[in-house]
Amino acid sequence: MEYSKRVKKVQAALRRKRLDAMLISQPDNRCYLCGYSAPDHGIDESSGVLLIPSSGRIHLLTDFRFQLQAEAEARDTTIILYPKGLLDLLKKLLPDLGIKTLGFESDYTLFSFAGRLSEQCGKQGITTRPLTGLVEDMRIIKDEEELDRIRASVKLNEKVFQDIYAQDREGKTEIDLAVAIEAHMRVLGAQGPSFETIVATGRRSALPHAVPGQVPVLKNQPLMFDMGLVLNGYCSDMTRTFPNGHADARFTEIHRLVRKAQLAGIGAIKAGVSAQKVDRAAREVIAEAGYGKHFGHALGHGVGLAVHEAPRLSSRNRKSLKAGMVVTVEPGIYIPDWGGVRLENMVVVREDGCEILNSDTTWLDI
Amino acid sequence: MEYSKRVKKVQAALRRKRLDAMLISQPDNRCYLCGYSAPDHGIDESSGVLLIPSSGRIHLLTDFRFQLQAEAEARDTTIILYPKGLLDLLKKLLPDLGIKTLGFESDYTLFSFAGRLSEQCGKQGITTRPLTGLVEDMRIIKDEEELDRIRASVKLNEKVFQDIYAQDREGKTEIDLAVAIEAHMRVLGAQGPSFETIVATGRRSALPHAVPGQVPVLKNQPLMFDMGLVLNGYCSDMTRTFPNGHADARFTEIHRLVRKAQLAGIGAIKAGVSAQKVDRAAREVIAEAGYGKHFGHALGHGVGLAVHEAPRLSSRNRKSLKAGMVVTVEPGIYIPDWGGVRLENMVVVREDGCEILNSDTTWLDI
Repeated sequence: MEYSKRVKKVQAALRRKRLDAMLISQPDNRCYLCGYSAPDHGIDESSGVLLIPSSGRIHLLTDFRFQLQAEAEARDTTIILYPKGLLDLLKKLLPDLGIKTLGFESDYTLFSFAGRLSEQCGKQGITTRPLTGLVEDMRIIKDEEELDRIRASVKLNEKVFQDIYAQDREGKTEIDLAVAIEAHMRVLGAQGPSFETIVATGRRSALPHAVPGQVPVLKNQPLMFDMGLVLNGYCSDMTRTFPNGHADARFTEIHRLVRKAQLAGIGAIKAGVSAQKVDRAAREVIAEAGYGKHFGHALGHGVGLAVHEAPRLSSRNRKSLKAGMVVTVEPGIYIPDWGGVRLENMVVVREDGCEILNSDTTWLDI
Repeated sequence: MEYSKRVKKVQAALRRKRLDAMLISQPDNRCYLCGYSAPDHGIDESSGVLLIPSSGRIHLLTDFRFQLQAEAEARDTTIILYPKGLLDLLKKLLPDLGIKTLGFESDYTLFSFAGRLSEQCGKQGITTRPLTGLVEDMRIIKDEEELDRIRASVKLNEKVFQDIYAQDREGKTEIDLAVAIEAHMRVLGAQGPSFETIVATGRRSALPHAVPGQVPVLKNQPLMFDMGLVLNGYCSDMTRTFPNGHADARFTEIHRLVRKAQLAGIGAIKAGVSAQKVDRAAREVIAEAGYGKHFGHALGHGVGLAVHEAPRLSSRNRKSLKAGMVVTVEPGIYIPDWGGVRLENMVVVREDGCEILNSDTTWLDI
């Protein structure tokens, strides 16, 4: 990964903004800039913060528990431990480095911490300034090495799906299947699931964010798998819905409609088209068939180091897509006392269209 | 659960603080007050916010995706959906409810969101005020129903450990074992692990936050399992370290020392004693044996709806323990090129000592 190129880009932005340095606390942003991949277990349990000066070497500030991982992973980075917490370290480090103006990530800093940081800095004559989206805007366009990793992640996710799909589901519960999927991911080499696997049977598939339950999967009823994994740091995300046996007329009608909407969405994607226009292309197909109110979420989202990142394909996002963005296309129709169908693939935005990353066709065109 | 009693306590606090209402965004706090258990997938992917007026019925503000779960779980709560986001809903709802002063959770609100909220409210003549620890301070003392759930969580976690421990580990990797543990948790009825299971072999056990790898577990070398699960919303957390075969003199020495430190910590726990004094009781045992610098983390932490919550048993926490708190006691010694030993049990603080929640004795006293 081109960490030093990325860091230089951030440093150039800091100089343009007349900032001496910036704290990067968002875990995916940290990883993007130096390769250190420890997650945070909640925003109040940080596993470290990058201090990026406007020129020169970057610092990873962390604690004892993460020292060995930081040493093994962080590229071109000076590691400094904070035995008494981050603020205590910054009190000495910022003046030592001659930092007078310090940016922080407004979208990944708690109101309470920002207050304490600004108060402490203020006493030392250091100005703090909230920043938004600086690294996220870089991450939104993937380079070829990132695309290779995402392709590999999608491919492995499909392999996991196909292996589990091929197994007998007789007498199995949603939890049995979710556990089998997540175990198989890890056995095949994934770091883990990229989100909690959804397995939803029958009318439970009408919950777009269903949690698998101790519920036997029903025959001849919708069965939804929404699953993704992390491989080499990069996420995948895919949904398949199939009838777990015989597809009746209603399932077939709704499934075909969702697939038609998905293809309309995919067909609308190319560089320069607004996200909301892509959302609309899929949504119109569902609305015209009279199911508009049963498709209540956005059409898709970006995927990369995070399973949900920019850009959102939603009716409210007016921004244009750009080549190198990676997004999901996942329309759904959810009918409370019947069930739901969602189909989700991932694509790379290209100048003249898009590259579909999925090759699995299980129950896609019926 | 006594949701209405808890809500009334929050409402009394709001009246004392002369606030008309408060937003509760932290997922465990939401759950504590109404039973709605959806997690947030990151602080920027909220699954809802409670609006608690200083008297009267509470509101759960959420979106389409969580409607059915909210309706199924949230007790005595009016559910309102926000199709265009939380701020858009609050713009109308706060004036409708006559709210002039609004608190928000400073420790679970992003700096950026707090800014947008305050700006919008300011235009409507509504004052916002950051609050800290209001619900957390209530959660720190567990009632009997919560203690029962925590006991059941600890008991099931021990059952999972014992079942997996009893299996043959020949040729297995850290990942195989971690996957087996997490799968068995769910099959036995847990909602899932309460954190990513740690399985660390040989010198890898010197990383206190090791991530399981595709690494075969070594015979006659330290093997550390740090594992916990969620059952009925409540967490457990336990660590065992054993030699995976024959214990050599060094393992035995270090293991006995860690156990001695753990017992010293447990022995120091009772209502009225400061957290730092308990930490010191265990730390001194390790320091006196010359391993002080190899025990770099705090002695323990609270456990409840969250696997890490107040109180921390650390050298910096001067607050006194109170009856009904639940904490881990988990000293460790980590030697970089050899490995580590950590032992972790959970206890309930009592007026005259503590109740040890664990009954598993696998490789505890050797």
